[in-house]
Amino acid sequence: MKKMKIIIVGATGTMGKYLVSALEKDHEIIRVADKGGDIKADITSTESIENLFKHVGAFDALISTAGPTYVGPWKNLNDKEFRKGIEGKMMGQINLVLIGQHYINPKGSFTLITGALTDEPQLNFANASAANGAVEGFVRAAAIELQNGIRINAVSPTVIENSPQYFPFFPGDIPVTMKALEFGFRKSVFGANTGQIIKPN
Amino acid sequence: MKKMKIIIVGATGTMGKYLVSALEKDHEIIRVADKGGDIKADITSTESIENLFKHVGAFDALISTAGPTYVGPWKNLNDKEFRKGIEGKMMGQINLVLIGQHYINPKGSFTLITGALTDEPQLNFANASAANGAVEGFVRAAAIELQNGIRINAVSPTVIENSPQYFPFFPGDIPVTMKALEFGFRKSVFGANTGQIIKPN
Repeated sequence: MKKMKIIIVGATGTMGKYLVSALEKDHEIIRVADKGGDIKADITSTESIENLFKHVGAFDALISTAGPTYVGPWKNLNDKEFRKGIEGKMMGQINLVLIGQHYINPKGSFTLITGALTDEPQLNFANASAANGAVEGFVRAAAIELQNGIRINAVSPTVIENSPQYFPFFPGDIPVTMKALEFGFRKSVFGANTGQIIKPN
Repeated sequence: MKKMKIIIVGATGTMGKYLVSALEKDHEIIRVADKGGDIKADITSTESIENLFKHVGAFDALISTAGPTYVGPWKNLNDKEFRKGIEGKMMGQINLVLIGQHYINPKGSFTLITGALTDEPQLNFANASAANGAVEGFVRAAAIELQNGIRINAVSPTVIENSPQYFPFFPGDIPVTMKALEFGFRKSVFGANTGQIIKPN
């Protein structure tokens, strides 16, 4: 297998740490986080994203596991709270692609994170359902626009094994194992698909 | 059939005008538009939306056909252009619900507009694919949150019969007749469904 240069955004989070550990044996990993990574970046700032790519230079794949959204009672959900998901999980990830496309190598890939909430809502997570839906619509559209063989997919898990604090909010959802999640990302990064929403389980 | 008080947002556009004309025989219609309606409103402003509902008072149904987005070459799509769809078709419609829920009658309904681009992208429309996806995710989530029997759906047509200027951008899509579009909205407003994405054809 060719050694790739892979940027992992959200590298210090639950998913990010697992993916770093799974991929670093065979690949060069650039760990990006708001704190504690190899490179600090704030994905809610286009300037910070631009600086990230200037610093890293050409790369083969970007994985994003970064997705802040508003989680909480519907009655408190208003325009202001909704912006958490827009600036974070939605535009944060979309801007990684819109800007990153100018730095990624030909035949490179972007893999973003969405979630089952797009199609299977749960109470308290309307902001995430909307942000996920936006990212998934974008992924399908970007796949037919990106040039030079650059691919894009999203991985869409339900609640994950290593986040038991969320289990009570996802009644009836069988948690996705970290191994299944990893394989979802592997399908996107090392496969040939584009415009796909990969649902690990 | 009970006479309903129905707000139509985007009432002077191609879809809006058709729906006004189809529904005004049997119902009280409040035509809302940025110009030329019974009431002027700017859906990109939460203050304007709040004023709209204060002015109209209690109502039975809201139909939105309002959906500005960036349409144009991918190479010009950046964070700034993306905001057109976020403030317009996405948050404009979402804020109509988040604010309007406090004014709508029990068992009332919201019907928003999305489009086939959510799942079937076309070149130049990535911003619309994302905004549609966000609204559809929101509709499914809001359906399990709204109280007092209030329902919410989206109507998702492909290119419509009365907008021939868009036909060249939708190769292979059979235009939706205005009658089919009207019946999609009728299913949402007069039916019992909630959380549905209605695809007229």
